[in-house]
Amino acid sequence: MLRFAVAPSGFKECLAADAVAAGIRTGIRRVVPGAIVDTIPLIDGGEGSASLLARSTGGELVPVTVTGPVGAPVTAHYALLDERTAFVEMAAAAGLSLVPSDQRDPGATTSRGVGELIAAALDAGVEKIIVGCGDSGTCDGGSGALQALGARVLDVDGAEIGGGGAELLRARRIDVGELDPRLSEVELVVAVNPENALCGPNGVARRYGPQKGASPERVEQLAAAMQIWADLLRKHSGIHCAELPGGGASGGLAAGLAGVLGAQLQSRFDVFLESADLDRRLREADLVITAEGAIDASTALGKIPTEVARRAKLHSRPVIALCGTIGPGADTSYDHGIDAITGILTGPVDLADAITRAPDLIADATARTLRMLLLGTTLRAA
Amino acid sequence: MLRFAVAPSGFKECLAADAVAAGIRTGIRRVVPGAIVDTIPLIDGGEGSASLLARSTGGELVPVTVTGPVGAPVTAHYALLDERTAFVEMAAAAGLSLVPSDQRDPGATTSRGVGELIAAALDAGVEKIIVGCGDSGTCDGGSGALQALGARVLDVDGAEIGGGGAELLRARRIDVGELDPRLSEVELVVAVNPENALCGPNGVARRYGPQKGASPERVEQLAAAMQIWADLLRKHSGIHCAELPGGGASGGLAAGLAGVLGAQLQSRFDVFLESADLDRRLREADLVITAEGAIDASTALGKIPTEVARRAKLHSRPVIALCGTIGPGADTSYDHGIDAITGILTGPVDLADAITRAPDLIADATARTLRMLLLGTTLRAA
Repeated sequence: MLRFAVAPSGFKECLAADAVAAGIRTGIRRVVPGAIVDTIPLIDGGEGSASLLARSTGGELVPVTVTGPVGAPVTAHYALLDERTAFVEMAAAAGLSLVPSDQRDPGATTSRGVGELIAAALDAGVEKIIVGCGDSGTCDGGSGALQALGARVLDVDGAEIGGGGAELLRARRIDVGELDPRLSEVELVVAVNPENALCGPNGVARRYGPQKGASPERVEQLAAAMQIWADLLRKHSGIHCAELPGGGASGGLAAGLAGVLGAQLQSRFDVFLESADLDRRLREADLVITAEGAIDASTALGKIPTEVARRAKLHSRPVIALCGTIGPGADTSYDHGIDAITGILTGPVDLADAITRAPDLIADATARTLRMLLLGTTLRAA
Repeated sequence: MLRFAVAPSGFKECLAADAVAAGIRTGIRRVVPGAIVDTIPLIDGGEGSASLLARSTGGELVPVTVTGPVGAPVTAHYALLDERTAFVEMAAAAGLSLVPSDQRDPGATTSRGVGELIAAALDAGVEKIIVGCGDSGTCDGGSGALQALGARVLDVDGAEIGGGGAELLRARRIDVGELDPRLSEVELVVAVNPENALCGPNGVARRYGPQKGASPERVEQLAAAMQIWADLLRKHSGIHCAELPGGGASGGLAAGLAGVLGAQLQSRFDVFLESADLDRRLREADLVITAEGAIDASTALGKIPTEVARRAKLHSRPVIALCGTIGPGADTSYDHGIDAITGILTGPVDLADAITRAPDLIADATARTLRMLLLGTTLRAA
């Protein structure tokens, strides 16, 4: 009997990873009724991670009203995974999807709500807080989050600067005299993509500024602001935040939390995939099915399917990637351990319709794909 | 080395079968560069068949201006396959796509142009004429085509009736005194779907009338007209045209040509697939790939992929069906010899865009599918 490891990401703005995994399992069982299917829904720390983590750990999603990225309050949440551990999803308080499209300016948006979520987790008495990065709508180096926790970022006259990344151009000193004292009692881990640096030609302002709504001029202004912020953080902590692997995560939030709060930055995959015991489960499978909303040139650049494939290939396991859309450059995935790609669409549809029907489309596409694979088992090898 | 038989239908209103086959071959070669690929583009006699036959036989497409289905002249064509054989595509002169959508009424449209095409083929001095049915926009029992060839259909007063199927309600006698005498010198074959009868509950009026634009009332009127026409044909020829297998093809054109001209009705697949030496070529392949614009519940009802699969299964060959869209009921194909289905779409698109990109989409989908199949060869069987 074939044993499947089903290890998908969620489909962004469509379906959470556990629902994707359930759809794939349905499709598998339709073709191989007795198949052993190990579902391992995966997160990268970005949007939707807190709710999935709460569901998968049997934890609790705690709603908190915080300052949103454009200042207006938003109902965010953190996940209480157990009595001693909280998970704070950055995107729940300051994600790009919380920024109205006509207000998208990472020079003005603030991560303040993330600090407020951390404070709420402290109120719950946890010993460890994991901050998940990804899908942010900000580029303020985490200054807003730090201010919410009692740090003060001062200008040349000793006055506190306002919110938003552009304000960091005026920052000259960090004052932690009034920092929430409970922060020194907790373990603070930030789950990051280590590829994201705060500064430099591939720094966060230049790499992600445009998609967050920054004009070319704003991007350069923010790049300068991040350099000023990196210098301040270094003076404050001794940490070289400009080049710190992952320091640029979530508009530099990771660098700010590292430099001012001493947070540890860890690879998001180490944080989230280790806890799922992914490597053992991939090794035990005959076939690995991963998935993501889109497979394209960016998939090879640190997305979940590529990481799953990399780990599966350590055990020489075959890997299929199922996706909502197959975009330009999808073939590059083949160089990163994905053996074959399959899409879920069956006819010309608009995106909204595809999203509504996604669970069925995923199950149907999985069934079709399995039939193709099993047909292959009857062919003599090429 | 794997040997492929690529035996697709065309994608209706999108891409001819040879272009579909070429796209599939491109995709195969991308994954298995040295693969042996035998391309066998297939037609069913309907729209586009003449031009593909002309290309594949090295024959000639002869343009002829004829009376169109709504009376206005249309530029049609027949194919001169060699010096002695012509192929007349019914749809080129009286196809549904030649009927403007606001004039779709099979009670009024005429097959007259088909007779004019046959006359043009007679002018070319051929010895055999094959008439391909399918995709018609008429339901006149072939009366229009017969009138163009000199037959007269008379009412109770001995006056000739007008064009269109509804006029047959008034038909009382067939007069062949002025029939083109050359017709008795040629072999006339009509390639039909034998499932299509002229009369009865599944007769041509009821089965295809609605999709040709007939209202429910018009359908019943045409069903009555077809019964009158069948009785006349029987009186004229002794042939039981009402139940003749394939007599309902192309709005009863086949019955008219059989009853008045003594044309032989042959299964379209016998006519077109035998000449392609399909069975031998399927038997020699390790894998058969067929294709059609849409795979859905209708595929099992006499479409090319099902016929290819049926024949491939006589030699136990595995069969994949590739398609533009996967519609409701596609799974029924699995009961008719198709082992696995794959679609070509990669993302939400509108139909027009998908049609433009079809050659690339077909090649890409074939390549993805082959990767999946070949991955299957490495799996232990379930």
